[in-house]
Amino acid sequence: MIRVTIFNEFIHEKKEESVKAIYPNGIHAALKEHLQDDELSVRTVTLDDEECGLTEEVLAETDVLIWWGHIGHNEVPDEVAKRVQSAVLSGMGAIFLHSAHHSKPFRLLMGTPCSLSWREDGDREYVWVCDPSHPIAQGIDRYITLDHEETYAEPFSIPEPDKLIFIGNFEGGEVMRAGCCYRRGYGKIFYFQPGHETFPIYHHPQIIRVIKNAVHWAVSDYRKIIDCPHIQKIGD
Amino acid sequence: MIRVTIFNEFIHEKKEESVKAIYPNGIHAALKEHLQDDELSVRTVTLDDEECGLTEEVLAETDVLIWWGHIGHNEVPDEVAKRVQSAVLSGMGAIFLHSAHHSKPFRLLMGTPCSLSWREDGDREYVWVCDPSHPIAQGIDRYITLDHEETYAEPFSIPEPDKLIFIGNFEGGEVMRAGCCYRRGYGKIFYFQPGHETFPIYHHPQIIRVIKNAVHWAVSDYRKIIDCPHIQKIGD
Amino acid sequence: MIRVTIFNEFIHEKKEESVKAIYPNGIHAALKEHLQDDELSVRTVTLDDEECGLTEEVLAETDVLIWWGHIGHNEVPDEVAKRVQSAVLSGMGAIFLHSAHHSKPFRLLMGTPCSLSWREDGDREYVWVCDPSHPIAQGIDRYITLDHEETYAEPFSIPEPDKLIFIGNFEGGEVMRAGCCYRRGYGKIFYFQPGHETFPIYHHPQIIRVIKNAVHWAVSDYRKIIDCPHIQKIGD
Amino acid sequence: MIRVTIFNEFIHEKKEESVKAIYPNGIHAALKEHLQDDELSVRTVTLDDEECGLTEEVLAETDVLIWWGHIGHNEVPDEVAKRVQSAVLSGMGAIFLHSAHHSKPFRLLMGTPCSLSWREDGDREYVWVCDPSHPIAQGIDRYITLDHEETYAEPFSIPEPDKLIFIGNFEGGEVMRAGCCYRRGYGKIFYFQPGHETFPIYHHPQIIRVIKNAVHWAVSDYRKIIDCPHIQKIGD
Repeated sequence: MIRVTIFNEFIHEKKEESVKAIYPNGIHAALKEHLQDDELSVRTVTLDDEECGLTEEVLAETDVLIWWGHIGHNEVPDEVAKRVQSAVLSGMGAIFLHSAHHSKPFRLLMGTPCSLSWREDGDREYVWVCDPSHPIAQGIDRYITLDHEETYAEPFSIPEPDKLIFIGNFEGGEVMRAGCCYRRGYGKIFYFQPGHETFPIYHHPQIIRVIKNAVHWAVSDYRKIIDCPHIQKIGD
Repeated sequence: MIRVTIFNEFIHEKKEESVKAIYPNGIHAALKEHLQDDELSVRTVTLDDEECGLTEEVLAETDVLIWWGHIGHNEVPDEVAKRVQSAVLSGMGAIFLHSAHHSKPFRLLMGTPCSLSWREDGDREYVWVCDPSHPIAQGIDRYITLDHEETYAEPFSIPEPDKLIFIGNFEGGEVMRAGCCYRRGYGKIFYFQPGHETFPIYHHPQIIRVIKNAVHWAVSDYRKIIDCPHIQKIGD
Repeated sequence: MIRVTIFNEFIHEKKEESVKAIYPNGIHAALKEHLQDDELSVRTVTLDDEECGLTEEVLAETDVLIWWGHIGHNEVPDEVAKRVQSAVLSGMGAIFLHSAHHSKPFRLLMGTPCSLSWREDGDREYVWVCDPSHPIAQGIDRYITLDHEETYAEPFSIPEPDKLIFIGNFEGGEVMRAGCCYRRGYGKIFYFQPGHETFPIYHHPQIIRVIKNAVHWAVSDYRKIIDCPHIQKIGD
Repeated sequence: MIRVTIFNEFIHEKKEESVKAIYPNGIHAALKEHLQDDELSVRTVTLDDEECGLTEEVLAETDVLIWWGHIGHNEVPDEVAKRVQSAVLSGMGAIFLHSAHHSKPFRLLMGTPCSLSWREDGDREYVWVCDPSHPIAQGIDRYITLDHEETYAEPFSIPEPDKLIFIGNFEGGEVMRAGCCYRRGYGKIFYFQPGHETFPIYHHPQIIRVIKNAVHWAVSDYRKIIDCPHIQKIGD
């Protein structure tokens, strides 16, 4: 059983009727409902929970963390962000969704601004598969069609991905590296661009399939804190 | 002075009136005219030349080779293709343009099929800059507009680029990794997607700027054949 | 059940008594004996078999190919080498051992000379783990000790590995990137340096553990020939 | 003229006689003396300067920053470390020497612990060149000999380098990725392992040559703060 924890800031869904209509119980609840199955056990936490619900205990019991945040990035305490970074470096998998490109833990792990260009015109997006053989792309055809999505555009200031899985094409003419794999420390990280809160992206079966694939890809049995040991000379 | 050699198969321009109208003396002649300046000395060769004009002597006097080919890929002798591969591995720079993704030397250097999806509908393409700080992107704004281009689409079966510089967005919805940097052996390689023969792509000042930038990026003072030496124990 | 095919040129073991003493039935037989278990079904082929035993049928039934070759590289027909390259690009896993750095299929897949410096003084080698969390390093301590090994030294003219897993330290002072991961086309490739024929390297439990780990890492369910399709405009 | 700023914490050289004997005016002064020439203009700053001497003004006038730190890492204010990170992301080059693997700005840029194993036995180290064609390796033979160096050993918890230039072999049997190139944001970064304070490493002509090469490699004309712009639809 893979233990998944979903963090969602859970702000838009409470304040904006249009978002609430799509995700009545929050993005986290929708993701949980769609993801949990015989292999995935899912728990959810939000900004409303103490320490964002991300205590050492919860992280220690999490195989893969999924993160959605946007206007509440700065409400996540630095200490929590560093704790998440540390858990990933120690082997926890992590999936950062959409506007989580600017979340504190993602930026800490990347070391770069993770900025991009953006506009909200509800463009059609095609999310193209660059490598159909990759585990994260299994079950996906040549591209995923999103009728409406916020436009994210290059340049996206991330380190060169270890492996680029998806690229987005927006109706207005932009492109965006939409699915990026990284290994950092002992942990695996996947950034996935789709998921603006005003569109029902996380009810799209192919988007869910990608996220589920990514959970299976990101999980690892190896979990250990990285240290900086004083060693002895071999043979001494 | 950087010594540039342009190889062009030079077939379409002789056979098809519409192509001839754009490149009356061939793509190689147009590129030469646009590229040569106080820093670049340019020579051209074609399939009509003996050994494609790419003898050991010519390659030894070439700092950067630019390659355009399409329907004549198989007319390039294997021996010439291997000679070009070897020159790149020994430190010669190389720029492969458009349909040269399927040229023999590019495939030899990549080790993969370098295949992609394609259609010819004259789509508008925007060629987006992913890293505005890279030497190859200097002088280019956020994107280059091509009014009409052949559509090339992912998946593009290349090794993960060392650095991805451009991504193309096509009007019909496709995307393509359009500018890819590699280092192989001692040589630097740049693949650049724009340049279908039926459109005046190589008369576009920004496309020329990119190719010129790439020449400056690919050149190296280091030129040496890679060997596999039997060494002595240190101190013996 | 993972279907493993081991190719061994099988020359040294027949000609040299000292090698025969270590591998009486050949390196392939020793590897088979040590690798096969409830999860791995192993077959062996050699240069003595027609088409090296690597027909289209055999490759189609192979999940992961292991390759050992040295003085017989040139006896492998080009057609067989290209067939192996093609199978890897289509999704077959491949593990190249020791002197297979200069085998035809490995060089075809890398696109580079894959040369290195070498000497035969029976140095002690420590094979160090760079990433203890990687699947290929599981069950291995900080380093593997080889009492005697042929010395392979940098520079090793390979493309930058997607992921470097091991580095070798030789008694005489040399270093060598000893475990290198690549993805090419749909296939995964692992190069592993230990294994000179005059030392009992493939009877070392930790070396076998690494190779077994690599088999599990390299296997993929995805198997498909890469094509270059003429596509239709979306919506047409 | 390339403007180089050297930051040295400058603690050991004031407290320990043995270090003072090697670097009477500090490591920064030795580096400055050896590096400055017709092409490099060098200034030095230390922990004793207000804000470590690294104000916005100084960084704005710095093309390449060189960093040496060890026991004083925590005395560098977080704000200064973030300012340096930000300058690198905006295009300033950076070279981190030896124990600067654990400096605040390097860890911020990498996103990982950057830990390693270590011992102080004064081992002989050979620093091997992996790619003799790389600009940073010019003028260096197959390897650099250091008679005595602190031993740094793998695993070194860094992101996979964009390009690995050097690997160290230590007398006691360890290995270490000793020269690592990265691009982050608009800036280029080089980590170089040699340089323990108790040995005269920075008086070694080949070590100086590598650092000088790295300065030339890291410098860039492109300098700009990365933003996250709200864009307009093309054509609007």
